[in-house]
Amino acid sequence: MSKKGRVFSGARPTGRQHLGNYLGAMKNYVALQKDYDCIYCIVDLHALTTLETTRDLKQNTFEMALDWLAAGIDPRESIVFIQSHVPQVTELSLILSMVSPLGKLTDLPTFKEKVRMQPNNVNLGLVSYPVLMTADIVLYETDIVPVGIDQASHIEFARETVRSFHYRYNTTVLKEPEIKLTEVPKVLGTDGQQKMSKSLNNHIELALTPEETTKVVMTMVTDPQRQRRTDPGNPDVCNVFSMHKVFSSPEEVEMINTECRRAGIGCVDCKKRFAANLNASLAPFREKRAALAQNPDEIWDILHDGANRARVIAEQTMVKVREAVGLP
Amino acid sequence: MSKKGRVFSGARPTGRQHLGNYLGAMKNYVALQKDYDCIYCIVDLHALTTLETTRDLKQNTFEMALDWLAAGIDPRESIVFIQSHVPQVTELSLILSMVSPLGKLTDLPTFKEKVRMQPNNVNLGLVSYPVLMTADIVLYETDIVPVGIDQASHIEFARETVRSFHYRYNTTVLKEPEIKLTEVPKVLGTDGQQKMSKSLNNHIELALTPEETTKVVMTMVTDPQRQRRTDPGNPDVCNVFSMHKVFSSPEEVEMINTECRRAGIGCVDCKKRFAANLNASLAPFREKRAALAQNPDEIWDILHDGANRARVIAEQTMVKVREAVGLP
Ligand code: SF4
Ligand code: SF4
Repeated sequence: MSKKGRVFSGARPTGRQHLGNYLGAMKNYVALQKDYDCIYCIVDLHALTTLETTRDLKQNTFEMALDWLAAGIDPRESIVFIQSHVPQVTELSLILSMVSPLGKLTDLPTFKEKVRMQPNNVNLGLVSYPVLMTADIVLYETDIVPVGIDQASHIEFARETVRSFHYRYNTTVLKEPEIKLTEVPKVLGTDGQQKMSKSLNNHIELALTPEETTKVVMTMVTDPQRQRRTDPGNPDVCNVFSMHKVFSSPEEVEMINTECRRAGIGCVDCKKRFAANLNASLAPFREKRAALAQNPDEIWDILHDGANRARVIAEQTMVKVREAVGLP
Repeated sequence: MSKKGRVFSGARPTGRQHLGNYLGAMKNYVALQKDYDCIYCIVDLHALTTLETTRDLKQNTFEMALDWLAAGIDPRESIVFIQSHVPQVTELSLILSMVSPLGKLTDLPTFKEKVRMQPNNVNLGLVSYPVLMTADIVLYETDIVPVGIDQASHIEFARETVRSFHYRYNTTVLKEPEIKLTEVPKVLGTDGQQKMSKSLNNHIELALTPEETTKVVMTMVTDPQRQRRTDPGNPDVCNVFSMHKVFSSPEEVEMINTECRRAGIGCVDCKKRFAANLNASLAPFREKRAALAQNPDEIWDILHDGANRARVIAEQTMVKVREAVGLP
């Protein structure tokens, strides 16, 4: 490891990624590769905790991998793989469950939220979620986990679990991961109200065609106070403007900021500009994605190769863990 | 499978086995081999749920395996192995946790009992115990699980879990195990009051020398009403008499039954007779055990060979399970 250390991050296989995923995670994944040895995991087992049907699980995994690779996650630099392909994680999760207090798990805000969301499916997997996450992190001797503030409690749990394991078995074989709090920009959906998410269908997929993208962008809700073209608008409360700040040039952003306030530019025109800039920005991604999609087998090969490399690290850790626990 | 089907049973590695273990489980294990393909598993992972220290785990595993083999579990007929040597069980356990309702697990009487016994260590492993047990059973396509009535709720749980899995993933790949209710004789300890158990230190180890055995037998509590040699006794409330019924000839049992009631035999004499019969009965076992103990490596080889054979069955099941779940 010539770099600054190992980064691990996992994401559920949610299929084709959208702007929210890109700005919230993928962009950061790509950037981290410069300074860290990165392991990026598609956590299909975690996904089982909430999926009533797994019909699309395989396809969603494939599409997400495609997006990741097209966005610049480099499988020669980083390890990209599917969680269930390294079953050692389930072994470690089970062992760590022996030092994971039930009360602490059921007290986690994330668990309570899940119970609220699926009261008829409060399964054991929901409770053990953070333990499996801990296993993922420590299995790969992770130094750093980049997370948003909403996931910080899980990493804190992982750190405590490592300490409990060390204490119970009088050992120090595991690495206690550091939290790298990452500013996750809150990307709103086309409704301009809620977080962009596939389930709310307010998302803009990265892999759309330019025409499809423009069509979706044109449905975006702008400053709700601006009823007519002649009304001045307020960019500060407009999600289209927030997006301009990410994808448009400083000059254009400045122009809109001024013209909107004096009704010098209409929302239709403003959105068209955003769509054009977004499409220009995504063009290289889309080109690469289309090329990669030509050879699905290659994507699967990359994922299997990633799993092979991950498994080597995982097995090294497990040898130490089994020994430390004193398993026969 | 030319026999009547597959039997699976697991036992925690509790070290040298005692009379209670023998009469309660081992004797039955040996007998079942005639009619069934048997898989006998030393469940070291289950043991972790309650062990604060694992210092003796390996040695206890070895000693129990030695006792099993000496008692007549035949590693050519049956598969004898250590649970953690087939990590597929942890993978299946995790997958089954997705269809295991938390409420059902925390409602099980066995869980509540554990919470009572170790209130300061209510770990996730205690809650998932029956799920791991289910995984053990179904991983090996078990037809029949021989259990005492106290464990029946766990097998009922396993059956329900199989049905839930089938329903959730619209499949029928798992085998729903049948319960074979086994009369587990309640073997009392030397105190004549409580169940024989190592932790109560009221046990008679099978592997003791004849002299040690006699010494322990002489400490056995008899009919508490019989204070003096000249008092008549009541064999119906005497644990020594219960043991005579297992290890002594019908004639001798009949004689004691009669003579005790009219003070024709004293307790010391009666216990000496039991010790002699017990030693005679255990002589072949002890001889075989001593021979096996000469080559510890052979015991480990047997256990590793068992794991290899178990792993083949396990992996076949997991291929079907991963496919049925729809994992990528
Ligand atoms: S002109 Fe642009 S920034 Fe102003 S309200 Fe319309 S979409 Fe928003
Ligand atoms: S004589 Fe035997 S059966 Fe009767 S009380 Fe004594 S030990 Fe028990």
